[in-house]
Amino acid sequence: MNGPSLPGPHLPGPIDPPARLLMGPGPVSAYPSVLRAMSAPLVGQYDPFMTASMTQTQQLYRQVWGTTNDATVLVDGTSRAGIEAAIVSLVRPGDRVLVPVFGRFGLLLAEIATRAMAEVHTIEVPWGQVFPVSTIEEAVRRVRPTLLALVQGDTSTTMNQPLDEVGALCARYGVLFYSDATASLGGNLFEADAWGLDAATAGLQKCLGGPSGSAPITLSPRAVDVLRSRQRIEAGIREPDDPDASDFVRSNYFDLGMILDYWGPRRLNHHTEATSMLYAARECARVLLAEGRDAVVERHRVAGAAMLAGVRGLGLQVFGDVAHKMHNVVAVEIPDGVPGEEVRAAMLADLGIEIGTSFGPLHGRVWRIGTMGYNAQQDAVLTTLAALEVVLRRFGCSVPPGGGVDAAADVYRGA
Amino acid sequence: MNGPSLPGPHLPGPIDPPARLLMGPGPVSAYPSVLRAMSAPLVGQYDPFMTASMTQTQQLYRQVWGTTNDATVLVDGTSRAGIEAAIVSLVRPGDRVLVPVFGRFGLLLAEIATRAMAEVHTIEVPWGQVFPVSTIEEAVRRVRPTLLALVQGDTSTTMNQPLDEVGALCARYGVLFYSDATASLGGNLFEADAWGLDAATAGLQKCLGGPSGSAPITLSPRAVDVLRSRQRIEAGIREPDDPDASDFVRSNYFDLGMILDYWGPRRLNHHTEATSMLYAARECARVLLAEGRDAVVERHRVAGAAMLAGVRGLGLQVFGDVAHKMHNVVAVEIPDGVPGEEVRAAMLADLGIEIGTSFGPLHGRVWRIGTMGYNAQQDAVLTTLAALEVVLRRFGCSVPPGGGVDAAADVYRGA
Repeated sequence: MNGPSLPGPHLPGPIDPPARLLMGPGPVSAYPSVLRAMSAPLVGQYDPFMTASMTQTQQLYRQVWGTTNDATVLVDGTSRAGIEAAIVSLVRPGDRVLVPVFGRFGLLLAEIATRAMAEVHTIEVPWGQVFPVSTIEEAVRRVRPTLLALVQGDTSTTMNQPLDEVGALCARYGVLFYSDATASLGGNLFEADAWGLDAATAGLQKCLGGPSGSAPITLSPRAVDVLRSRQRIEAGIREPDDPDASDFVRSNYFDLGMILDYWGPRRLNHHTEATSMLYAARECARVLLAEGRDAVVERHRVAGAAMLAGVRGLGLQVFGDVAHKMHNVVAVEIPDGVPGEEVRAAMLADLGIEIGTSFGPLHGRVWRIGTMGYNAQQDAVLTTLAALEVVLRRFGCSVPPGGGVDAAADVYRGA
Repeated sequence: MNGPSLPGPHLPGPIDPPARLLMGPGPVSAYPSVLRAMSAPLVGQYDPFMTASMTQTQQLYRQVWGTTNDATVLVDGTSRAGIEAAIVSLVRPGDRVLVPVFGRFGLLLAEIATRAMAEVHTIEVPWGQVFPVSTIEEAVRRVRPTLLALVQGDTSTTMNQPLDEVGALCARYGVLFYSDATASLGGNLFEADAWGLDAATAGLQKCLGGPSGSAPITLSPRAVDVLRSRQRIEAGIREPDDPDASDFVRSNYFDLGMILDYWGPRRLNHHTEATSMLYAARECARVLLAEGRDAVVERHRVAGAAMLAGVRGLGLQVFGDVAHKMHNVVAVEIPDGVPGEEVRAAMLADLGIEIGTSFGPLHGRVWRIGTMGYNAQQDAVLTTLAALEVVLRRFGCSVPPGGGVDAAADVYRGA
């Protein structure tokens, strides 16, 4: 029906990935039901089923975020598309943005704000630490930013920055509060409304257990007011009475005002929603809420505790302020004399298990091992520890036989 | 294993779309093998299988575009993400951009260039026409733009702008030549190298027969030189010797220089490639090339000719300069007294077939009927015409019994 079914002489076959247990800092293995959802047939952009599915997805993500924000949607791109949409839509060129940097992804927020022509101010703590709220307050008082942009969980260091007092602080100073929860959402507590977030973004490829390519976002009414104050409906669909602000967002794709008009009752044409990624995002939220938001965080807490106990049970050291570690990733110091990249390569090639490398000052010093989404489970934790033990021994590292698996299993028995 | 399997009291079930035959201007029904590809398991971002799949995808799209451009990649977003990436990366604020507008998507290119702070010049022809190359040349000579941005196929009018002489013209005046081939690629001839394109972008949701959410792009060496002249490696992964231009691209996500470094041998971390969408994009190109690029264009030509004959066989009028129509969509004038939106709603609700509405000056005047990708086939064409006949009659329109199907079948018999 579609011509010859045999591929041409140099064409590869259908995609056929090897089986992988993805235990790095993300992306991680997807929930099987999320993979199935993506093979569902497409419908039209304004099909009643499509618009109903978009509305359902909004309702599901309000629960995931812990918010009643009407402006809870998806940005069609990877997690950094969501970050850029939030920053470019909320910040005008020349506005001050304050970024507390405690790892690579703080640097990314500063980078994106710089590209948006903001006046960017950063404060830093050494990698492996988080900020006391007093330090953030001092900087807010000094800089008086339009926006505070703060990563919740930075996979580069594994740290989980406490956010619960930051919203109230921002409200006192009239500062918009944005957090990048890409690496943390779903595996660690996040309360958009209770913590006073004005904007928060994530991706699917970490604790939500889906593929990269869709960025959940939520915006407070105060953030929406900012968008509306600079609204411009694009040429081609603008009606005579539509807004056309001169300080429009310097991006069409990331103009959250237009994205909200597409998701909202006006259903104003913007991009063509990425249907299969919407199906995936919807299913990620659905499986999370079916299990229960608190139960999923607890499952990540236990898996993270088990992995932490396990790597210590193998005699390995852990990097950073473990009391402030995210549940879903641990940075394990590479023992002296052990070739870190060769260990990772052997884990992948011989056992099909991926653990992560690291960035910047930690490059070559630590592996990052994740326990996220579908893989925040006892079987995945124990399998990874058993494999790591075998491979470490192969590279001449003296490790206690069964020490990792036993310590992790003890955590599960006690949980 | 993941907690209770019963959904909570207010949770929807797994996604379960109704069967739809999508015969609008896109998105259209995906090839079944593309849907299957998206349910393949995930692998890590730097898994050898992943990087090999990225390289394969580049090789496949070079053949789809008709190019030897090394810089042939995907942008992770919908088709307009690809457009914005091309424009924001090639155009500096204040640069002149010339956009010949012959429909809504020309207006979109102008809008995106305006958001990128370019000095935008437009020329226009009435909807339903294309530009003679002499008119474009006159404007190029007058405006002396940095970039000519020209839609190939504009679904809003169904027109297919001839591009074959435009590249040589741009080369004579030292102008970068960009084309948006979202609606046309795969269903109409496109020769990136032979026609002298410096940049071209598309989406999967039209003739390529995939879901929206990934934007193939190709860039000539001349375009890459522009990117490299303003290269800035982002903070967090920048090494001391890396470039850090002051006229950097005003977007991180759409900085094609960084995207090329991620796809290229350096594999420099940028976004996390949307794995499932990569699988989809790869399969879209694979099925196209397996059938043969020319054969797929010919299948679209025949399906378009059959649909054109069919709607005329039903006594309907067609909008625009049919000699310059894209193969894959036709604009059908809504007969006087026929409620256009009610016809569309009945087609969808009662027969599961979607045909399209229209924008701007054509809103309420025409339906747009597509024959794209998997649906550029006789069964889909005849089914749509049979359904349209029945529904038109229901709304009081006098149509010749079997007139549409017979005329279309004649085209297939003669093809």
